[in-house]
Amino acid sequence: MNSPRVTVISTGSELTAGRSQDTNSSWIANELFGLGYSVERFVVLPDDPKLIRDELKSLSSNASAEHPVLLVMTGGLGPTEDDYTLEVVCELTSSTPILNEKAHDRLQALYRLRGKGFEEALTTALRQVSIPSKSTALNNSTGIAPGFWSELQQGAYLACMPGVPKEMTSMFKEELVPLIRKQFHAGELYSDFLLIWGMSESLFQQEFIINLDVLKNGKAVWGVAAKKGYIRVTYQSEDKSVVDELIQKTKEKYTGLCTGDLFEDFPKLLSEKKLTIGTIESCTGGLAAKILTDRAGSSEYFLGSVVSYSNLIKENIVGVKKETLEAHGAVSIETATEMADNGAKLLGTDLAISITGIAGPGGGTPTKKVGTVFIGTHIKGQKTEVKELFLPFKRDLFREVVAATSLYIMYNRLRKLA
Amino acid sequence: MNSPRVTVISTGSELTAGRSQDTNSSWIANELFGLGYSVERFVVLPDDPKLIRDELKSLSSNASAEHPVLLVMTGGLGPTEDDYTLEVVCELTSSTPILNEKAHDRLQALYRLRGKGFEEALTTALRQVSIPSKSTALNNSTGIAPGFWSELQQGAYLACMPGVPKEMTSMFKEELVPLIRKQFHAGELYSDFLLIWGMSESLFQQEFIINLDVLKNGKAVWGVAAKKGYIRVTYQSEDKSVVDELIQKTKEKYTGLCTGDLFEDFPKLLSEKKLTIGTIESCTGGLAAKILTDRAGSSEYFLGSVVSYSNLIKENIVGVKKETLEAHGAVSIETATEMADNGAKLLGTDLAISITGIAGPGGGTPTKKVGTVFIGTHIKGQKTEVKELFLPFKRDLFREVVAATSLYIMYNRLRKLA
Repeated sequence: MNSPRVTVISTGSELTAGRSQDTNSSWIANELFGLGYSVERFVVLPDDPKLIRDELKSLSSNASAEHPVLLVMTGGLGPTEDDYTLEVVCELTSSTPILNEKAHDRLQALYRLRGKGFEEALTTALRQVSIPSKSTALNNSTGIAPGFWSELQQGAYLACMPGVPKEMTSMFKEELVPLIRKQFHAGELYSDFLLIWGMSESLFQQEFIINLDVLKNGKAVWGVAAKKGYIRVTYQSEDKSVVDELIQKTKEKYTGLCTGDLFEDFPKLLSEKKLTIGTIESCTGGLAAKILTDRAGSSEYFLGSVVSYSNLIKENIVGVKKETLEAHGAVSIETATEMADNGAKLLGTDLAISITGIAGPGGGTPTKKVGTVFIGTHIKGQKTEVKELFLPFKRDLFREVVAATSLYIMYNRLRKLA
Repeated sequence: MNSPRVTVISTGSELTAGRSQDTNSSWIANELFGLGYSVERFVVLPDDPKLIRDELKSLSSNASAEHPVLLVMTGGLGPTEDDYTLEVVCELTSSTPILNEKAHDRLQALYRLRGKGFEEALTTALRQVSIPSKSTALNNSTGIAPGFWSELQQGAYLACMPGVPKEMTSMFKEELVPLIRKQFHAGELYSDFLLIWGMSESLFQQEFIINLDVLKNGKAVWGVAAKKGYIRVTYQSEDKSVVDELIQKTKEKYTGLCTGDLFEDFPKLLSEKKLTIGTIESCTGGLAAKILTDRAGSSEYFLGSVVSYSNLIKENIVGVKKETLEAHGAVSIETATEMADNGAKLLGTDLAISITGIAGPGGGTPTKKVGTVFIGTHIKGQKTEVKELFLPFKRDLFREVVAATSLYIMYNRLRKLA
């Protein structure tokens, strides 16, 4: 069967009112890309049964067995009166709502758990655990409302899932992917990715991607996402060796700048080497520490930080010499070095990252422009290094990039020692 | 003229591939809401001229003078070969591309500025400063490519703007809003908002909104956005007194829980009172400090922080008593109190916020569940207070909510003293 024309639909009046942001569609598109399908269109609609019905009709109208259509829809499966998905799909497939046993049992259990009588919210709640009679249930392993898979007409397939990201993402992976694979005989794609630090999307495309024949002749597809401080490059192909070669080529081109998922690998490396870490931050105001503690279990390697925003705290708590601050200024190699070394001593850590820079918009000087930052890395038994970077971004982006990059710099030194 | 049926369109293959997130559509929808228009649908399309043309055709097909259609489209105005907006709109309006003088001059100036010959990139660049002959230019005050306003057929109006948010937002406000007002005679709406802390979207709707007749009879519209630790409630009406009354009613219903934009008002209050602040954080790992330093000029009131993630740092740097930690544990009123009081002394600040809790998923006990947090607020000359909260959210949300709420708690104490 030909691969389907795919549309991703999100429903919710809070979305079309701009009160909240639809993140489901791009997540789904990204996953489908991983399965080898490209999405033709996103549509976001308010909770309006007529609009939803008309959209589903027109999107499925020109579908056929030879030219199938896949519609992946999220939202509108809740218990409230502005949830219309069940009603609309029942109408389009001339079905009636029927109870989904599995969901119904889980709902009852939940009520028991809460010590509530199941009768209380019966009417509304039951709606939430019903699916169209002519549909296949998509089990909801993390929430209440089941999703469902319907054929609107020959060759027009509709998957409905809850709008709650946590419920949708697990339902997509556990329930929907197998159905899509079965329906459209999708070939298994092999995929791998790299982070490239200090690289821009467009530069990477210009100086590397455009020269790769294997991408031109369609043997593999690539994707790149611009992140804060790095880009995330993905290659996909049915042939593992093709992907491996692309990863290898990329590493050779950008030696030292490539990592795996740093935010996974760095903590892993720290645990393996039984190293403890802390940060002494000025312009990032604690953001590097926050990132280091994003993951559960970070107390294993992260001990603490000092945010020495004012010079008095740099002096009195961290122990940066008054003379150093006066002679070289707070934003300098010398201050960054003392912050890292004295910081490690103060916090009692094996490693310390120091960050001092000018986030702006104010505070720049002719010699030290806004966007200047010094990142120091103290490694027990090694000479402390300080990198000077110039990142002329606006304040919030500057801080995000600096914090993430400081982790990369430390990680990169550590893995070389490994 | 009747108010138009509005569709917001974003183009970009990076969007439909899920490589980047469309934030323009919800921003535009929110602004249009502020002008009194509700958006009927978002459409996101790849850089595919056929798909874009067909979508614009079908969206404008049933427009008429009595039932106008407004299409607001972003993206595809760049100089590269995958930018098709100009070409498609020229085709649909049987126009030819014509140079936009203003944009052309700015482009030339830019090249001169860069000391480059204008001839270099002429061909591609010129495309970027052209608009359809049958269209009105939308001047780009922050970038190169001008936008344009075209009538696709009677009653079907299309606004095309660059996809770069900075360029799009200023073009929307400066150039497009006046045109929309003129075309559709939009009445000026008065608008005001409140933050309500520790409140959920649905609860607010159930216990407050549904009882407001003024909203039922359409004299005013409301919007609510769920944020981390609070909801943001907006009221709009052509009648200022209606909005003021709604704000008043809300404040009465949720006394003490309402603030303006805390992230503006709190710093303002600190500056007015010439107070300095610092934080001593455990589970939030520096996030409260990061938020306090998000705004430029925060060094005026924010001096620094200690992230005392490990108990040794709570003891050795912050000066929490060993006995306190042993008798009551790190997550306790007693520890939070000492963190706040000793923290203020250590940092030399007038105010100190202390945060100690269990972010999870691990670390919970029968008596102290994951989601338990103690927030201490030290105010010079006042008795230190500690609030215990139970926030059973997943790790990252828990940390965001705790950090933001800690600022609210301190702000709320301060304003009462004012």
